[in-house]
Amino acid sequence: MLTLRPIGFVESPYQETSQVPRGLGAQHHAEGVLRILPEFEPGLTDIEGFSHLFVIWAFDRSQGVELIGRGPADERPHGVFATRSPRRPNPLALTVVELLRREREVLFVRGLDMLDRTPILDIKPYLSSIAPEKLRRGWLAEVEAR
Amino acid sequence: MLTLRPIGFVESPYQETSQVPRGLGAQHHAEGVLRILPEFEPGLTDIEGFSHLFVIWAFDRSQGVELIGRGPADERPHGVFATRSPRRPNPLALTVVELLRREREVLFVRGLDMLDRTPILDIKPYLSSIAPEKLRRGWLAEVEAR
Repeated sequence: MLTLRPIGFVESPYQETSQVPRGLGAQHHAEGVLRILPEFEPGLTDIEGFSHLFVIWAFDRSQGVELIGRGPADERPHGVFATRSPRRPNPLALTVVELLRREREVLFVRGLDMLDRTPILDIKPYLSSIAPEKLRRGWLAEVEAR
Repeated sequence: MLTLRPIGFVESPYQETSQVPRGLGAQHHAEGVLRILPEFEPGLTDIEGFSHLFVIWAFDRSQGVELIGRGPADERPHGVFATRSPRRPNPLALTVVELLRREREVLFVRGLDMLDRTPILDIKPYLSSIAPEKLRRGWLAEVEAR
């Protein structure tokens, strides 16, 4: 067992799940703030050199686990580990955001898909990408091709 | 506070940290296994269609937090959120692996950088990449250019 605490909170334009773009072709251009707790500000040293960040956050308003379920992209059910569903055994979420600028313990970012006041668990630099020609996107590519 | 439990464990050729390639230009081609607990096997449905997976795992053998520290890539110190250091406020790690095949609750993968017996917390499909020309890699690019 592992116990985690927030390192900060998201300030997002989204107050409820229905406002977050979901499903096929959803684009996440929302801008907002990752407000890190002041005690962790030294951990942000040099982060402004990176254009993109991984944000690991908690689905704090999700309830229950659904190992196989349907999402907004496809009427067929899929395993939870083949989706980004919030109803996971561990309610962890991952978003790549673009870092616009930093002011002390506040990161201004683009590409949010979190609700307002979401707890942030970790931030890491996004360092490299898988080349598009090497990527297979499973059931999602099938749905897009239909 | 958020309490997490392993959904499975890594079977890796690495028994200790010194065996894991680290630092500039480290390549991760190690093959191994993500052995998911049988109770979660239904959650893997359709995962074999994806070529790459995000694995969120726990630095279970790391101790303490270092908000600013030195790593293997650079003699200059950096903030922990601008690095992949294990000494983080929440000991979460993220690795992108290539999925080679699945046999029931066992995922055969390439690109491991975890130690043997590492607890796995979550698996998600890797869906898209940031275009290389849009990526800035901060202090790491500076070090590589030296």
